[in-house]
Amino acid sequence: MTELMLALDVLTRAEAMDIAEKTYPYIDAIKIGYPLVLGSGLSVARDLAEFDLPLIADFKVADIPNTNRLIAEHVFEAGFSGIITQGFTGRDSVSACVDVAHNAGGKCYVVTEMSHPGALDFMGEGVAERLAELAVECNADGIIAPATRPERVKALRQIIGSKKILSPGVGAQGGSAEEIAPLIDSMIVGRSIYNSEDPAKAAQSYSCVRDL
Amino acid sequence: MTELMLALDVLTRAEAMDIAEKTYPYIDAIKIGYPLVLGSGLSVARDLAEFDLPLIADFKVADIPNTNRLIAEHVFEAGFSGIITQGFTGRDSVSACVDVAHNAGGKCYVVTEMSHPGALDFMGEGVAERLAELAVECNADGIIAPATRPERVKALRQIIGSKKILSPGVGAQGGSAEEIAPLIDSMIVGRSIYNSEDPAKAAQSYSCVRDL
Repeated sequence: MTELMLALDVLTRAEAMDIAEKTYPYIDAIKIGYPLVLGSGLSVARDLAEFDLPLIADFKVADIPNTNRLIAEHVFEAGFSGIITQGFTGRDSVSACVDVAHNAGGKCYVVTEMSHPGALDFMGEGVAERLAELAVECNADGIIAPATRPERVKALRQIIGSKKILSPGVGAQGGSAEEIAPLIDSMIVGRSIYNSEDPAKAAQSYSCVRDL
Repeated sequence: MTELMLALDVLTRAEAMDIAEKTYPYIDAIKIGYPLVLGSGLSVARDLAEFDLPLIADFKVADIPNTNRLIAEHVFEAGFSGIITQGFTGRDSVSACVDVAHNAGGKCYVVTEMSHPGALDFMGEGVAERLAELAVECNADGIIAPATRPERVKALRQIIGSKKILSPGVGAQGGSAEEIAPLIDSMIVGRSIYNSEDPAKAAQSYSCVRDL
């Protein structure tokens, strides 16, 4: 079964809590990023943790090992259950995040490809494969790969085996839920749910796709 | 003249204010990162802005263009005067940070190389040159390149011309201040100052090197 992860990319704590309250019965996990955390403070994690779903810090951590470690420690102390790190800063930086995550009983996922046009400048074919290999070598729990490029997801699956694939890009960015669902473990959907007039119904509509 | 930028990588607002208070007459700029901001809140920027020095958010921003834009908006609204972004996420992501910075009257710097061992996995020779070219094309104000590898700094200078080079890695990481100072615009020093028994004196010792 493919899980549904809500990318809660709203700008205020009030909006985040409102959308989470409306959608939590129909989603499997929540992911938030720096814009919400910078505006609300890291304590927004404690509020969202009340919905008792995995809560992922999509911070795309991209610093030296010691700074990555300090960032990850803040994340897990704040109540998150997982963290997303960039991989291009190399093995020691990724390992720092993985180690903190696992010591906290949490998960760490490595970005291999992204779904915006500029991602092809440095992170396209070849590099993404090496990043997926790095994720395996560092004992990460999975990778992030774009739903907008299913053929790439298939190529990366060959490398990571049974580790998780989390895929953004469904909905507003044009990725097809039906096409990508069978290839991945978690479908990340944001705007199509939180910008919907009826977020609960929108989330439910993806729940059906999950069982494809 | 090479400027001295203090990397204020302490963990609490109290420590940050204490070190800044002791060293501000001897430094030209302050740089802080996510560990301090996640622990103290973004409002620590307003406190540090009181020292009337350029204040740089070393967030190594590494997301899609829209998220980069939102992060940069938070940064400049909080009182920072500059932001550091990764370049690896490509042209549109870098441009998003540069645009917000320049609209706010601030600066944006692009990481081309880093000084930890893992940086060589994906960001070594060749890639760093392309990242420096990207910084120029995106009209960024400068780049970050490691003081631990002066020969690389020289190679990157050929690409960026008169744009600024900010260099970490002096002091605790082994880079030689005397060797790197003539090659760069801003020397980033952290632990050698804030972990010193006499931070003011330590900062002053680098002030001498600035005039090399």
